Formats: sequence, structure tokens, C-alpha cells
Amino acid sequence: MSNSNTLYSSAYSSAAAPLRIGIAGLGTVGGGVAKLLEQQGDLLAARCGRRIQVTAISARSRGKDRGVDLSAVRWHEDARALAADPEVDVVLELIGGSDGVAKELIEQAIKAGKPVVTANKALLALHGTALAKAAEQAGVILAYEAAVAGGIPVIKALREGLAANDVRRVYGILNGTCNYILSTMRESGREFADVLADAQKMGYAEADPSFDVDGIDAAHKLAILTSVAFGRELDFQGIHVEGIRHISALDLQFAEQLGYRIKLLGIAGRTDHGIEQRVHPCMIPLDAPIAHVEGVFNAVFAEGDSVGNVLLTGRGAGAGPTASAVVADLMDIARGHHAPVLGIPAERLAPGETAPMGRHRGAYYIRLMVHDQPGVIADVAAAFRDNEVSMESVLQQARDASEPVPVVITTHETEEAGMMRAIARIAALPAVQESPRLIRIEAL
Amino acid sequence: MSNSNTLYSSAYSSAAAPLRIGIAGLGTVGGGVAKLLEQQGDLLAARCGRRIQVTAISARSRGKDRGVDLSAVRWHEDARALAADPEVDVVLELIGGSDGVAKELIEQAIKAGKPVVTANKALLALHGTALAKAAEQAGVILAYEAAVAGGIPVIKALREGLAANDVRRVYGILNGTCNYILSTMRESGREFADVLADAQKMGYAEADPSFDVDGIDAAHKLAILTSVAFGRELDFQGIHVEGIRHISALDLQFAEQLGYRIKLLGIAGRTDHGIEQRVHPCMIPLDAPIAHVEGVFNAVFAEGDSVGNVLLTGRGAGAGPTASAVVADLMDIARGHHAPVLGIPAERLAPGETAPMGRHRGAYYIRLMVHDQPGVIADVAAAFRDNEVSMESVLQQARDASEPVPVVITTHETEEAGMMRAIARIAALPAVQESPRLIRIEAL
Repeated sequence: MSNSNTLYSSAYSSAAAPLRIGIAGLGTVGGGVAKLLEQQGDLLAARCGRRIQVTAISARSRGKDRGVDLSAVRWHEDARALAADPEVDVVLELIGGSDGVAKELIEQAIKAGKPVVTANKALLALHGTALAKAAEQAGVILAYEAAVAGGIPVIKALREGLAANDVRRVYGILNGTCNYILSTMRESGREFADVLADAQKMGYAEADPSFDVDGIDAAHKLAILTSVAFGRELDFQGIHVEGIRHISALDLQFAEQLGYRIKLLGIAGRTDHGIEQRVHPCMIPLDAPIAHVEGVFNAVFAEGDSVGNVLLTGRGAGAGPTASAVVADLMDIARGHHAPVLGIPAERLAPGETAPMGRHRGAYYIRLMVHDQPGVIADVAAAFRDNEVSMESVLQQARDASEPVPVVITTHETEEAGMMRAIARIAALPAVQESPRLIRIEAL
Repeated sequence: MSNSNTLYSSAYSSAAAPLRIGIAGLGTVGGGVAKLLEQQGDLLAARCGRRIQVTAISARSRGKDRGVDLSAVRWHEDARALAADPEVDVVLELIGGSDGVAKELIEQAIKAGKPVVTANKALLALHGTALAKAAEQAGVILAYEAAVAGGIPVIKALREGLAANDVRRVYGILNGTCNYILSTMRESGREFADVLADAQKMGYAEADPSFDVDGIDAAHKLAILTSVAFGRELDFQGIHVEGIRHISALDLQFAEQLGYRIKLLGIAGRTDHGIEQRVHPCMIPLDAPIAHVEGVFNAVFAEGDSVGNVLLTGRGAGAGPTASAVVADLMDIARGHHAPVLGIPAERLAPGETAPMGRHRGAYYIRLMVHDQPGVIADVAAAFRDNEVSMESVLQQARDASEPVPVVITTHETEEAGMMRAIARIAALPAVQESPRLIRIEAL
């Protein structure tokens, strides 16, 4: 081994030069990273053989007290200056946004030959393939553990710990806000809008919640996971995305009755039609371990041909968990670790083509609100039959001549396209009020 | 960054020399590793930048068909010869046993400057500190992901993914045989001996099961986890170890009734008296995610000061999961990754002193079999009171003049030493039949 002889003697000697970090963006996460590096400096140095030291920062308000001494640090008005700062070895991008300064900073750091650590899932979801290629051509590390599932070391697990596996499926609870809302709705029986308003008051949801509750954030993370798990270019645009706005307390009740729990999952897997990628609410059997991941926790499941099923759970957001992941990336860089950005060299990634959602196969839960009149169920059943959808159960608990009553149908495994045709026909039936609610049942 | 420029250009070029592996021991795991390296050769090379190639083997029966072509491989009668074989870059020790040939092979490989990968938890539990020191002095990697929790990348998670954290507690379901037996006992209502016999028939338990069911295997793994999590020398001897032989179907019933599930856990954590290390059956609240890890699955939980709670679950044994972990170690070596064997340089590990079990604080479940006569509960209560143990609940469901009936007591948090004195006094009461059964209640 060429590098064995000096492995510990040089890297872990006290003489090793510190790794100098430039931080762009000093919000919750950036402040958390600076504090962690200061408070745990000795422990981190013992573990990675070098001190990790913040030498430069670009952030909006210089004066703000962040509970950490930054008096000796160089400040830059323009974050992009960090790429050129000779006292910066590694650029930490915590500005956010899928374009603009964040992207320019990363591109310039790569050009300058400086390793980059980022927590920016939106940017990676949209530009990850190009950035990976640029980084590898320049021989520069681009690390992003914090971009997916916060503090859970899931990128490391997929890219290194499970690297001996051909992964067949990867899925997860990738958005803590949605999981918190769904957990709370189930426990309290309250409706979405009500729980969302509370979550916003408590800081678990943003003022503009659409990024989270419409599934976009989860889709960004899924795009990254899919690329790393299957060795493909990212294909964010190809992901079928549904959020949780249409989930009602009634559906959560029926789910429990049927032995399921409703979770927003991001799912990617090999199918006969290629890799499928989808983000939507799912009914999960109660005996699946991921059904018990509640509140703001995230979870990522991977199925490998050798290892079988592995599930990782932990906090997906927040200053502490995100800083934990960011600093782990810095420590890998301090140790000289490197692996292809997306698992295999970016030039050799397969094209990022996602299987059409119409070819998805699975079981379905459908809830209709119908005027209880003779022949309705027969019309519904005919719509399913004509589209080759096989019903598993029909549940009509209440009868009421004056108000629409819920009819809940579950189906056997069927193709999405046929299901959508059936639903369109059912939605047009005069007795059917409201849009039919459809939730996919996942056999985990 | 000194190594950035050649990062991908050299390591991931087709010209990179293969990493040549010598395997000692070709049983289930060794055969699995050889097969995995052959079948996934291209994928592994894409991921780690070099081919990994088995060039030498030492195993008992050369002729046996292992489903993989080993005709071009060099065979050694004596495993120790692998250390000296010039066509071996890395030695893979899969012989097992805490001393003898396995230990000598590893020592000789280290002396020869060759990285070692092993799945040998018994050897590491007893000699891990010395081997880590020897390896680091020689500048040689000693990797052992497969030694703890099989396919779950838990060593990587602790040593790298969560390396930014000061870990406060680590615990897990570390023995799949025990977890399978306890799960099956609970589901079927059958007794330990009966379920064990079945597990032996199905190959889930060894003919001599004591290593597993008496908690020794779990303790080996806990010793390693404790060292890595807390930066201390291994202290296997200091672990308090109890197995699952004394768990009865009755206790599993009472546990469910009280809202608990019984699991054999290995637990290590910071206390006022130092690091405690213990392996014993625990009552776990049903809302703890680890309570839902059933059958042969393992799980490891870590609590870090930044990341919070992280839980990893997966298969803890078997050819596939173990080979997955072994090959991941080989890929790290192929990539040139290295980290201190036990998380920080071995010369700087704290002494491996374990807090005395008598100082452990926790809540307890006690089941007595008593002749139902006036004054028994008063005598029991007095024994607790005199030892400053505060009872939380007393349950005496059945009354029978002719046969002993179960009395179940739970206590508030108390010190183990006082509890043991109370139990000794209670055991001596004339009305108390059988030894009192004690199971610790864990507040997870």
C-alpha cells in the first residue's frame, strides 16, 4: 500500500496543518457549524488528525451575536470571494437556492481546486450531475451529506457502507414537516390546515409551506438518493410528485381501520420499465418498521442484494443534526477521504431516465363521497372492471339519504394508467361528490 | 489539498492496479465474499476505482464447490503464510476464535505492513486495543465493520458519519439469535427451551447456543461499540452480562400488559460513575422504535450531542450481510480511506474502566412466585423500603391457595446495589418460591 507507511504518523501528528474553512451563509446551520467546530475542536482533531478552523465567512449581518467568537475571521461581502481567498482550503456553501450565488460560489471553488461542502439539496437536485462532473474533472471533492435526511449519514451509508450492493430499492420519509403534520393529524384527529397553522407557529413549517407540503423538498432529496443508489444522472424533472394537502382526517381514520399508516414517502426502485421515482402519500402496513417513524424524524430504507433491508432513522433537519452532517463531511476531507460524488465517476453515470408513472404497478386506496343511491357501487365497479382494475374490498359504513357518505375501495395490484382512467370515469358519475381521493398502498 | 489533483484521474483510471486479497477461512462468509467480488466485480471497480481480486486463500477443503471459480488462486496450508505472500496486498481474516491462528495471522500481517479486514468480534473484544496500537504504529489499516451488527454500517456511522458528535449513549439489539427467540416466544406464547430447539433446527442457533443466549456474543460487540463511541480502550471483562435463558413466557405476557417489549440489549453510556456497559434483557416501552425490531434483525442506536438520536437497523448475520460489510471495508482500503482504528489514535484512548454495576440506576420489573398468604406483600414491601427502593406498582392477578401465584412489582428508578440487597432478602422469604425474576426497565 503506497500510503500505509505515513498513514497515522503524519496525518495524526500534531504538526499536521489545520484545514481552513470558509463559510458562506451564517444562519441557523452555519452558526451551528461554527459553534460545533469551536466547542469540539480537540475531539474532532483527535478523530481526523487535523484541526478544522473557520478562517473566512460571508454572511449578511456581521455584528449579530452567534454565540461563537468570530473576531479573528476574515469577512467577505461577496460569498464568491471565498473561492479565491488564499486562506480558505474548503468552501462551505450554506446560502441555499438552486441557482445564483450558491451555484456560482460552488463552480468557482471547484475551478479554484477547493473542496466544497454543501447542504443545498435544491441545487444538487437540479445541477448535481454537472457539478459532479466539474468536480471530478478538477479532482475536487464535492460533499453533501447534510442535503439528504439531515443528521442521518445516509449518503455515506449508500456510497461507502453499502457500496458492495446492487441496490434494488431505496425509499424514505424525507421531509420532517410533512411527517410531523401527518403524525399530529392522526393523533389528534384534526385536519391538515389546522395542524399546518400550528406547525407554522411552532417553527416546524415555513410561512410559505408549499416547498415542504407539496413534496418538492422530498423530491429534491429523492433525486439525489436515486442517483447515488442506482448510479444514474439526476432526474428531478422525472419524479412524480404529490404532496399531503389532500390528506384528510377521514383518510387517516380509514387507514388505521385497514391496518395502515399514512406517510409521505420518496420511493425509487428498479421496475420492468426502468427506475421509477415518486413522492406521494402512501399507506404503509403497520408492521413495517418505517410506519413507526413519527414526528419530525426522517428515515431512509435501502434494499441491497447482499445486505438485505437496512433502515436508518434520525433527525432530518435543525441546526444540530445538519451541523453534525456538515462537519462529518469536513472531517472526511481532513482525513483525505474521497469517493466519486454520485457513487461512480460522473462520466459513467447512466442517463437519468425515469419510468413513466403510468406504468407504475401497485395497490390503491380510493375514497369517494357519494350520494347513497341504488346502482352507484355497480357503476364504480364497472369503471374498475373496464380498466382491468381488480377491487379487493369495498367499505360503505354509513347510510344517509341527505348527505354524501364515504365509500372506501382498496384494489389489488394494478397499473397506474388503468387506475387513472377508471378514476376519471368515476369522478364523472353524477352520484360522486368531490374529487375521488386516491392514496397508493405500498407493500413494504 | 495535496491529493486533490490526482484524486479521480489516477485512482479511477483503468490503469489502477488491482487490490489483491488473501482470504483466510472459506466458510459461509468467506465463500460469500469470494462470490460477491466475482459477481459484482465491475460495479465495485466503478465505485472504488480499482478491481478487488482474490489472489490467495487458506481454507480446509480445497476441493469443495463454493460456486465460484478459484482455480487461479494460490492456496496455503497455513493461514499465516498469507501475511508473507507477495501477491497479497490485504489479508482477510475469517477464521474466527479469540486467539490462536486468527490472532497470529493478524499480527503477522500488521508486521508485514498489510491492511487487515476481519469479522472477528471475539478477538477484537479481547485484544482490540493491542491490535489497534500495533496497526497504527505500523501505519496499517485494521478494518472490522462486519464484527458488529453484520451488514449495518455501524462502525462507519460512529467513526465517520457521526464523528462530529460527543456520543452520550449507544445501545443495540446485537444478537439476532436472541432477538429471534424472544420475538418467537412472544408471538407464540411458547417457552425458551422449546423455541431454542426449533431455532437450532432451522439454523438460527448453534448446537452449543451459550455464546449467543448467554449474552457473550452481544458483549463482544458492545465492547467494540463502547470503545469507538467513547474513545476508550476496550473493556470486555468489565461488562455486566446476562443472557435470556431465564426469560419465561409469563414475563413476556406481563411485559405486554405493562406496555413493554422484552429485548436483549447491549447498552453503554456516560454516568456519574463513568461509562457503564451492560448486556441483559430489558423491558422497552412500546413507543420506542427499537421495540419494533423483530426476528433476526439487529439495531444500533446512538445518541449524539449534535445529531440527537440515530437508529440503524438491518440484518446482523448471514453470508450476504456479512460479506456486504467485509467488502465495504475492502473498498475503503482500495479507495485509500483510513481513520484511527477505534475512532481516535489508540495511544490516546482513555483507560477502559467500566462503572461498577452496583452503581447503575434504573427502574426494575420483579416477578415473584409466592404462596398467597397474609403478610407476604408486607414483607416484600419492607425489604424494598429498607433498601430505599420505591415501588411503582404491584400486580397480583390470580389467587390460589394450593399453588404459587405470580406477583409482579415495578419500581421507580433506584440503585442496583440496593435492589440486589432487597432481592436477596425477598428470595429468602418462606412464602417466595423459585428465584425472583428481575428484568431492568429502560427509559429509552
